[in-house]
Amino acid sequence: MDTVKQAPRYGSHHYINGAFSNAEPSRTGSVFNPSTGHEIYRTAYGDRAVVDDTVQVAVKAGREWANASQAHRLQVIFRMRELMLHQADKIAEITGLESGKTISDAQGELSRALEAIEFATNAPQITKGEYSRNVGGGIDTFSFRQPVGVVGCIAPFNFPVMVPMMMGTMAIAVGNAVVLKPSERVPGASALLSELWAEAGLSAGVWNMVNGDSEVVNAILEHPGIPAISFVGSTRVGEHIYQHGSKHNKRVAAYTGGKNHMVVLPDADLDAAASAFVSAAYGSSSQRCMAVSLLVCVGDETAQKLRDLVGDHIAQLKVGAYDDPSADFGPLVTQAAKASVESAIERAVAEGGEIVSDGRGITIDGHENGFFAGATFIDKVTTDMQLWQDEIFGPVRGMMRAKNLDEAIRIVNAHEYGNGAVIFTRSGGAAQVFCAEVEAGMLGVNVAVPVPVGHHNFGGLRRSKFGDAHMFGPDAARFYTKLKTVSQRWPQTETAQPAKPSLNFLSNG
Amino acid sequence: MDTVKQAPRYGSHHYINGAFSNAEPSRTGSVFNPSTGHEIYRTAYGDRAVVDDTVQVAVKAGREWANASQAHRLQVIFRMRELMLHQADKIAEITGLESGKTISDAQGELSRALEAIEFATNAPQITKGEYSRNVGGGIDTFSFRQPVGVVGCIAPFNFPVMVPMMMGTMAIAVGNAVVLKPSERVPGASALLSELWAEAGLSAGVWNMVNGDSEVVNAILEHPGIPAISFVGSTRVGEHIYQHGSKHNKRVAAYTGGKNHMVVLPDADLDAAASAFVSAAYGSSSQRCMAVSLLVCVGDETAQKLRDLVGDHIAQLKVGAYDDPSADFGPLVTQAAKASVESAIERAVAEGGEIVSDGRGITIDGHENGFFAGATFIDKVTTDMQLWQDEIFGPVRGMMRAKNLDEAIRIVNAHEYGNGAVIFTRSGGAAQVFCAEVEAGMLGVNVAVPVPVGHHNFGGLRRSKFGDAHMFGPDAARFYTKLKTVSQRWPQTETAQPAKPSLNFLSNG
Amino acid sequence: MDTVKQAPRYGSHHYINGAFSNAEPSRTGSVFNPSTGHEIYRTAYGDRAVVDDTVQVAVKAGREWANASQAHRLQVIFRMRELMLHQADKIAEITGLESGKTISDAQGELSRALEAIEFATNAPQITKGEYSRNVGGGIDTFSFRQPVGVVGCIAPFNFPVMVPMMMGTMAIAVGNAVVLKPSERVPGASALLSELWAEAGLSAGVWNMVNGDSEVVNAILEHPGIPAISFVGSTRVGEHIYQHGSKHNKRVAAYTGGKNHMVVLPDADLDAAASAFVSAAYGSSSQRCMAVSLLVCVGDETAQKLRDLVGDHIAQLKVGAYDDPSADFGPLVTQAAKASVESAIERAVAEGGEIVSDGRGITIDGHENGFFAGATFIDKVTTDMQLWQDEIFGPVRGMMRAKNLDEAIRIVNAHEYGNGAVIFTRSGGAAQVFCAEVEAGMLGVNVAVPVPVGHHNFGGLRRSKFGDAHMFGPDAARFYTKLKTVSQRWPQTETAQPAKPSLNFLSNG
Amino acid sequence: MDTVKQAPRYGSHHYINGAFSNAEPSRTGSVFNPSTGHEIYRTAYGDRAVVDDTVQVAVKAGREWANASQAHRLQVIFRMRELMLHQADKIAEITGLESGKTISDAQGELSRALEAIEFATNAPQITKGEYSRNVGGGIDTFSFRQPVGVVGCIAPFNFPVMVPMMMGTMAIAVGNAVVLKPSERVPGASALLSELWAEAGLSAGVWNMVNGDSEVVNAILEHPGIPAISFVGSTRVGEHIYQHGSKHNKRVAAYTGGKNHMVVLPDADLDAAASAFVSAAYGSSSQRCMAVSLLVCVGDETAQKLRDLVGDHIAQLKVGAYDDPSADFGPLVTQAAKASVESAIERAVAEGGEIVSDGRGITIDGHENGFFAGATFIDKVTTDMQLWQDEIFGPVRGMMRAKNLDEAIRIVNAHEYGNGAVIFTRSGGAAQVFCAEVEAGMLGVNVAVPVPVGHHNFGGLRRSKFGDAHMFGPDAARFYTKLKTVSQRWPQTETAQPAKPSLNFLSNG
Repeated sequence: MDTVKQAPRYGSHHYINGAFSNAEPSRTGSVFNPSTGHEIYRTAYGDRAVVDDTVQVAVKAGREWANASQAHRLQVIFRMRELMLHQADKIAEITGLESGKTISDAQGELSRALEAIEFATNAPQITKGEYSRNVGGGIDTFSFRQPVGVVGCIAPFNFPVMVPMMMGTMAIAVGNAVVLKPSERVPGASALLSELWAEAGLSAGVWNMVNGDSEVVNAILEHPGIPAISFVGSTRVGEHIYQHGSKHNKRVAAYTGGKNHMVVLPDADLDAAASAFVSAAYGSSSQRCMAVSLLVCVGDETAQKLRDLVGDHIAQLKVGAYDDPSADFGPLVTQAAKASVESAIERAVAEGGEIVSDGRGITIDGHENGFFAGATFIDKVTTDMQLWQDEIFGPVRGMMRAKNLDEAIRIVNAHEYGNGAVIFTRSGGAAQVFCAEVEAGMLGVNVAVPVPVGHHNFGGLRRSKFGDAHMFGPDAARFYTKLKTVSQRWPQTETAQPAKPSLNFLSNG
Repeated sequence: MDTVKQAPRYGSHHYINGAFSNAEPSRTGSVFNPSTGHEIYRTAYGDRAVVDDTVQVAVKAGREWANASQAHRLQVIFRMRELMLHQADKIAEITGLESGKTISDAQGELSRALEAIEFATNAPQITKGEYSRNVGGGIDTFSFRQPVGVVGCIAPFNFPVMVPMMMGTMAIAVGNAVVLKPSERVPGASALLSELWAEAGLSAGVWNMVNGDSEVVNAILEHPGIPAISFVGSTRVGEHIYQHGSKHNKRVAAYTGGKNHMVVLPDADLDAAASAFVSAAYGSSSQRCMAVSLLVCVGDETAQKLRDLVGDHIAQLKVGAYDDPSADFGPLVTQAAKASVESAIERAVAEGGEIVSDGRGITIDGHENGFFAGATFIDKVTTDMQLWQDEIFGPVRGMMRAKNLDEAIRIVNAHEYGNGAVIFTRSGGAAQVFCAEVEAGMLGVNVAVPVPVGHHNFGGLRRSKFGDAHMFGPDAARFYTKLKTVSQRWPQTETAQPAKPSLNFLSNG
Repeated sequence: MDTVKQAPRYGSHHYINGAFSNAEPSRTGSVFNPSTGHEIYRTAYGDRAVVDDTVQVAVKAGREWANASQAHRLQVIFRMRELMLHQADKIAEITGLESGKTISDAQGELSRALEAIEFATNAPQITKGEYSRNVGGGIDTFSFRQPVGVVGCIAPFNFPVMVPMMMGTMAIAVGNAVVLKPSERVPGASALLSELWAEAGLSAGVWNMVNGDSEVVNAILEHPGIPAISFVGSTRVGEHIYQHGSKHNKRVAAYTGGKNHMVVLPDADLDAAASAFVSAAYGSSSQRCMAVSLLVCVGDETAQKLRDLVGDHIAQLKVGAYDDPSADFGPLVTQAAKASVESAIERAVAEGGEIVSDGRGITIDGHENGFFAGATFIDKVTTDMQLWQDEIFGPVRGMMRAKNLDEAIRIVNAHEYGNGAVIFTRSGGAAQVFCAEVEAGMLGVNVAVPVPVGHHNFGGLRRSKFGDAHMFGPDAARFYTKLKTVSQRWPQTETAQPAKPSLNFLSNG
Repeated sequence: MDTVKQAPRYGSHHYINGAFSNAEPSRTGSVFNPSTGHEIYRTAYGDRAVVDDTVQVAVKAGREWANASQAHRLQVIFRMRELMLHQADKIAEITGLESGKTISDAQGELSRALEAIEFATNAPQITKGEYSRNVGGGIDTFSFRQPVGVVGCIAPFNFPVMVPMMMGTMAIAVGNAVVLKPSERVPGASALLSELWAEAGLSAGVWNMVNGDSEVVNAILEHPGIPAISFVGSTRVGEHIYQHGSKHNKRVAAYTGGKNHMVVLPDADLDAAASAFVSAAYGSSSQRCMAVSLLVCVGDETAQKLRDLVGDHIAQLKVGAYDDPSADFGPLVTQAAKASVESAIERAVAEGGEIVSDGRGITIDGHENGFFAGATFIDKVTTDMQLWQDEIFGPVRGMMRAKNLDEAIRIVNAHEYGNGAVIFTRSGGAAQVFCAEVEAGMLGVNVAVPVPVGHHNFGGLRRSKFGDAHMFGPDAARFYTKLKTVSQRWPQTETAQPAKPSLNFLSNG
């Protein structure tokens, strides 16, 4: 850990073909410690030329890796898992330092990354083709999946470890090379992971990292050597990624924003619901696409009780630096994010919201320039308010009221996003109706953050996901591979004279 | 059949909400009998307003159909299959009349359509979600698939029955409504199918057909009520479909052009190979995306023998009207197609091709204005020639020579298309190398037309397919549905006090 | 239907190799019309010689059928479905005549049989093998399933159509021949089905029927030509089947008796629960292995209300001849069954049961010798009573009381049988606990007869099913096939010198 | 390793409930070092009382383990894998010491064990149930798998590490407890594994080991607390296991003997074939159920060449003590095995076999009492000879001649065993015919030991496997679990009056 603190420049260079690049970058950008508000180092920004060089490396390395046996590829994945476990403290430290999330939260993120890696050991199972004997005319038909080649992975700042590893590990496990662009805010963790991949025995050039901003993104989207794009980030960017990547005939999976509602029915365990809401709403300063944004209470009595319970919990929350073990959550990622949060609160008040808890204007001793915002909770939110309409990546959460389940579902479905949605109830019937009717990809029943376990598919609906593919979970095997289907027949030793050719469709086989 | 001949105006109107439209169209277009070269009727061309009306109908009908039980939906599919069997002659007659393919070829097409419908009875099986118990924290995780709503299906002229039914039947079987735009050249079969769907008990508005041209296509691509687009047709159009549909954030599966090579090794059964080549190359006047385009002979001896064998077979082929039972294949679909074929031959000769068989200038007694072209076979084709580079939708096929398997594979992989590719050999090792290395989605080993059986996935690679999805075969279940994943936990009767909320990532569930 | 009534001797002969046997049987047995109590004809009883002849036919026919293409086999299944639909009335008439169940109940049975046949059209999909490329050492590994050869099917009297077709259709769809022994009480329906199979185009010898009793059963169990045994019937016989079949090294799936509890919690919709109970309890004179046997009420208030509601429903039930359209259920299958039911009631009373409704001693005008018993409902049943311990195949049902869900589950799990068990509640949590803890294979939540739909697996636990296999639903594909796994590598053209052999385990491939 | 040599008493005691038993056994048996022929220690033999105590422990521990989350179970499996890697040398040393196989062969065995453990990390994926929405009547149907409880594992001497771990790891991964009876010849490795399981964090009582002989086996087969039996060993014992276990209504998977033929066609790479044969035939002194037993040469020329090539290879083989790094294989497991091998050779000669290489009478310096036998190769074997008919667990292999592929297949299929069979050829057609027609469960094409990779199913046909289940590979998930299928419907808030109960079958839901 000390080495990290002493040499906090981990993410300053690209990682290409098995080594950190020592070329002089034309542009660089700041990497901050959000807990202090200070720049800790500058990271190289790539450009089209860097991307092109990297893709050429990746295409070549990917071709060999595609021909490696399943057995060999699997051993690398198993070793990577062990190395990440052994380096867990260092990974969490870099994550917290650059993103602002607390060490314990970073460890939670790492656990989820490991879950994804563990699932990637299922690659041989989930990429199996199918085999049918004698489908007709003496033909056996079978299929198999081969890697697409190179996958472009564009990752967000809020999960510096989990998202790159969720994308990259399965892509690699099935035989691709990866060109990763981590968030320019948090390149350090990806850089460390690059070293670990090499130590795990991955061939040089299979995992590559190019730092930078939209120039790198567009170079990836347009490069003919990259047939598949994985993206996690905002809807604004994700929509561009999907459209621009598709314009270049790529397959694209873009997981984007969310505005996740938590509906609480009167029959729910309200204590459990309040506790779950606060966890799911404010963790990581609410900078999660699966954070709960809105508490939708069915019935005024439910609302009143939850308002009190939630308010009490919030009063106990402690904001602090990423390495303060007593902090519940840390700073926002940038000064701009902090400003945006504060203006969202102002607007919400102007639109009629009722502040239950106000997180503006907090300062942390010894970290006076850190990008901190406290937990804010606003009652009387309605679908007219911008607070409801916009995704807010910061600890501003709202409370809404609905007459009944139907109205609550209508509220949830009125939003443009459909990432997660959850219900707290004891009623099997209410849960069934909720899951059937709510237009969100990940649903929770008495579970506040419905991120599915690694062996199920992750992905939202509507404007929370672009493209039909899933890139985390078992269907990822499809996104990261191409399918070939073979119709095979063998001539027997002594064949009769071939007949006059028949030109009808069915008989052509 | 007589009724068809007497009233050959089947495809003259749109079919919307369970009935043929009797609104006066603003524009119309000709439907020809390619065997005579005469217009047989004019078909209504839709516009944005028609598409919008139709989508509104489909959205509403789709919502109800999505809530129909699997059992109910399945019964409709089974009845549709029976009705098509009972109307097989009529379907084949309309198909041949409007497309020019022979009746027996149309019957072959129908058989394949039935195969797809029969596979659609597997919809409940292939759309199953997954269920996991106690994945962690007392949570059960499960998933299910729901229809996307409305599917826009854009079909080509060359399979007037098979493609609409392959697209539409599975889309409907899993609970969607369909807006089909058949080819404006051959709307009759789709119109007949519309009637059969109603007779099969499908609710009005679930299957709709809008005739027309690119205006209708673009209206479908842009309509917010249609989240999924199925397309089969040329690469030029398909690329537009993919990019334009994606620009409107839809999921798009576009199956496009092919230039399918048949590689023959010296150890192959050459008699069988020659016969298979002629069938696969010239059937349906070569107007099939899976037709064999090029015969790639490994070794000069192989080439010489095959040239002779193929030439002999071609000399026996008979071109004739669609309803001439002795014809091997019929006319091209349009006069323009015929002209294009003839100019392709001229160009090939100019570029150095050696004509083995020349199909230009044929006339059929009694059908002097029909769009006929005979089987043309050109030796000494090389990758420099346009004859190799372009997909030619007409009976002009070429022969190439390669020194060995490696060179043959290099030729196949040099082409921009990757639909089908086949090898004729007795060697298990050669077949394995071919299937592993050739960049085509559908491969044949001693099978000339490697269209997979209905329960395997159909789809090409490279510029023969846009988008990562498969829309025929088992993966179609994914393309036509959206996935929801539920994480579910139930409170037990006597729960302890809820703990202080933990805001770390993993524990938020 | 008239032909049936006029010639009610349908099941009098074996059906072997595509024809009814006209050999003189050494023994015969009575087939009764339970509604009148009269013998309607005598059926041939087979012996070891007949079984041996039949197996020889089946082995031969099965060998050819195993080599038929999937496409061909599927067409026969589709045609069989159509023929059964066309002959639905005749099938229902024979079923009712010989079993005593009402025509409308027989039609319900037929619907379920059709569901199984419809699922059998999924055979190509669910029997697919798997294909993995380059698992290590250049080896591709793939698997495929082939039919086992001949399946011995031993069917019960209570579903004369459904069980033979559920067993036989999937067995045939995947390529086996079948030797069916229908119940000697109801051979007529199987005989009619034999004719339909032939009409559907099934090759002679693939479907065979041998009538008879335990001599035929044991001959089937011991015959070396039959590797797989499907059985549905009583636990007493099923246990023998499992042990005796296994002793002859066969694979055996035996679905046996049930004693199915319906637990009702106080929060349930009691009106719906009472109605569902009466339907599920008394339908078909309770002669169903999935009939509800016991109503387990949680709480005295629940019990009192349900007792009244159920009593009211029972008072409305009408018992009558199979062809009386106003009858809710018909007679028992034999005079002995009727006697057994009456003695069970007497014993129950002696053991302390409280009769709510007494079905003894009813007579039906015009059918005075029919084997009728009315609906009997006995409260205060406990686990000490034989009424609880024994499966009773007749309309004697009981009611039990439990303090809470835990006690109810303990009662359910104390029974030796574990076929079905259901709960009526509104609570998601109660349903989850019930499904997790109850040791039954088929569970219902607000569903009284939890027979899964045809594309899910049917099968009980504990002494309700012997063997680990499922023979209805998707896993049936495994039971009726054998698996081969191939590890395949092809020599490349120019191989280096073979190395000195290494004798270590891993390197032997 | 030293500790092993100094304290070679690892397997002297049972391992029950997380600790080695220190109870005084009523009986003990010798454990030999086959390389020296000396007893190294005596191992406790259990009896019915010990088994009963152990099962009671296992039932209790299994109940808790079944309720552990998937996530928790998986972590134990991952840790076990790491521990085995770290202890690889020690494991190989014990394996070689007690079984006689060479250290490098023991390491190969360990690699395969690890492959199985790595596949067991797929347990959550391969045990997933299915979920269907609205199958009819508003019912959702889903299924899930729960562990069966306790699995009895009976393992052979020849793979002291691999077989116990293949059986036990998947059984544990899906939630069962295990009662393992290792071979009484080689209990040491299982004892060491027991310690590692504890170190990996497995709860006490989930993995138990009882040493002993047939008394322990029968106690396991008869114990009502054990519902599932896994066995690998001889056909004689396996048949008893299957019949006796089934008689006690258990599910049984018994993998038994083999007599594996290697067919070589004239077009094969004969050098590669000869090398592969020698590896596959003599490795581990031929004490493997998947060893090649017979070389079946098609054509006299093929035979003559192979005889010479094989003879040359055999001449280079070195037999030696398990810890002699230059040895190709070690001693047989017992003196009796050695005697049996020698008498088999004598009998073969008497029956007309022609000795190419004679392995009798060898002695190893310094290991004069070791149970050594050299590689023996006998030509002119026919199906009349006992050498062909019997499985010989020792280095006596034969050569047969066939006129053509058909005759070769007839020879293979004439044998009672059907474990593995392989063909060496370049012909795709020959391989296809071979795989389709040969009645063996594991087939190789140019692969001499067709043990499938861990993510495919292992298992023979005919008398090489009893029971229809697979217990290694993905289908193991089925064997080690029970399936529950739930039909679920929830009452909506405002329901109409319940209808009069309908007692027909379909409507009962």
